[in-house]
Amino acid sequence: MSSSEFAFIDRLRLLATDPAARGLQDDVAVLGDLVLTHDMIAEGVHFLPTDPPASVGWKLVAVNLSDLAGKGAEPLAALMGMTLGTDSEWDERFLTGVAAACEAYGLALVGGDTIALPPEAPRVLSLTAVGRGGTTIPARSGGSPGDALWVVGTLGDAALGLAALRNDDEAEGPLVEAYRRPVPQLAAGRQLAAHATAMMDLSDGLLLDASRLAAASKCGVEIDVDVLPLSRAFIAELGSDRRARLAAATGGDDYALLAALPPGFDPLSLSLPTRTILARIGTLTAGEGLKLFDAAGEVPLPEQLGYEHRAQNI
Amino acid sequence: MSSSEFAFIDRLRLLATDPAARGLQDDVAVLGDLVLTHDMIAEGVHFLPTDPPASVGWKLVAVNLSDLAGKGAEPLAALMGMTLGTDSEWDERFLTGVAAACEAYGLALVGGDTIALPPEAPRVLSLTAVGRGGTTIPARSGGSPGDALWVVGTLGDAALGLAALRNDDEAEGPLVEAYRRPVPQLAAGRQLAAHATAMMDLSDGLLLDASRLAAASKCGVEIDVDVLPLSRAFIAELGSDRRARLAAATGGDDYALLAALPPGFDPLSLSLPTRTILARIGTLTAGEGLKLFDAAGEVPLPEQLGYEHRAQNI
Repeated sequence: MSSSEFAFIDRLRLLATDPAARGLQDDVAVLGDLVLTHDMIAEGVHFLPTDPPASVGWKLVAVNLSDLAGKGAEPLAALMGMTLGTDSEWDERFLTGVAAACEAYGLALVGGDTIALPPEAPRVLSLTAVGRGGTTIPARSGGSPGDALWVVGTLGDAALGLAALRNDDEAEGPLVEAYRRPVPQLAAGRQLAAHATAMMDLSDGLLLDASRLAAASKCGVEIDVDVLPLSRAFIAELGSDRRARLAAATGGDDYALLAALPPGFDPLSLSLPTRTILARIGTLTAGEGLKLFDAAGEVPLPEQLGYEHRAQNI
Repeated sequence: MSSSEFAFIDRLRLLATDPAARGLQDDVAVLGDLVLTHDMIAEGVHFLPTDPPASVGWKLVAVNLSDLAGKGAEPLAALMGMTLGTDSEWDERFLTGVAAACEAYGLALVGGDTIALPPEAPRVLSLTAVGRGGTTIPARSGGSPGDALWVVGTLGDAALGLAALRNDDEAEGPLVEAYRRPVPQLAAGRQLAAHATAMMDLSDGLLLDASRLAAASKCGVEIDVDVLPLSRAFIAELGSDRRARLAAATGGDDYALLAALPPGFDPLSLSLPTRTILARIGTLTAGEGLKLFDAAGEVPLPEQLGYEHRAQNI
């Protein structure tokens, strides 16, 4: 993100003084027991012109649901904005993906807007998802030194899938699927929300998002690179050495969850969906900043902590 | 709107089966006492690249607030999606317009998303506005034969302003202001909502929108062209003959209100804001379709009833 974009977000923060805005430091707004999130995706930036349109529709819904998952909210309703191109078959197939994701997660499409764009303009798609929060709607900012940091899901798959597609737009397999059809961790998010001191979904890379959670919580954060959860497909492709693990921790587009939990609490005691992947990856600390370590000692920070060239989610 | 776009909206309707969606036949979704609307605007389609950025920000907020006004809802909160270009001064000035409109109408900006776009791509801006409905949230579909049709506001100003700007991008004056800085009729909408059998805001032209309200209400509609409310600036520019009146009734971008009221109800009995312009322009009828008349008798329908080339608000 450029410095002018940072300045712009700061300018927005000055506007968003309502408590519902949570200082724009969360991924969501909270109105009573409702949790609202609004994400926009653009062709050539967040998806590839060659991506199957149905997967683009799925992803638009899933990335918004992932924001709800990060707050433990139950999907309720969505409003969609979309640009209609000259390729009505694309639009139709896109919609089948939207429908599939809405149906899979009980999200009702209740309204929105379609607009025409000048020819050649890249498609821009937006969704506002509304969810109902549980008794607690964890912010990013509630963590304390000593809290354990847990990740739900695996890291790095989508980034490898995207790299494969950039190389060959016919690429297939679980990594490509992870990029195109992320699965929002709604059930785990609901279970964790009641116990987490801070929680968010991981969209821009673990190291970047964990730094944001720690900063919002006025803590530092230490992460054990050895225990980052990697999928078999990831390991088959890139291995599991330090370099591979750092790639997984910075790739972005994971739509996993990051939760800070009190040190005595064991999330394995929750009745999480079978096959939920859960890993304790680090700890919030007194102080500030991010430190990485593995069995060999401290690990130097990579130059890029995540997917920073994308404008920030406000 | 092309036939493929119509087909697309029909396809969307099949998805939107939740009662909150109101069959996508309203401009809004209704969740409990909350009214939600989502509008998107694009450079070169809904605003001109030469429009002052602050006025684009104002208009983005105002067109969404107009949807809330059409349902008598009180502005509560908004989430904004915007594409950030390379011209950070544009983005800053845009934001001052957003801020001005939010402040003027008590709308809290509580979240959203900013994304980067490829260079040269037209800006796309979206807003989801959330309002709190009153005891009644009128749909488009509740009108009955015999109900009187009232308009709040004047017609045709914005369309003339746009025409002036297409001719000369330095054009100024009240018609240009009407195009760039529409005023949502929130106070009148709240007053009327308790009494209206059907209500909506006018964005695509009176004849088109009145036809939609009548069709949703399973009625026909007759409109008296002689009594359409025209501003002094409009009359000074285009006169007030039948041709001018039909231009006003089809131009679009009015953000006036259209309300169906029981025949015995006099909206002048309400305590509307001073200088509210209110005109009884017609009647809902048994049957279907739109009929126009004036003192000289029946008026043939113009070829275009409104701003149909814009994709439909769902």
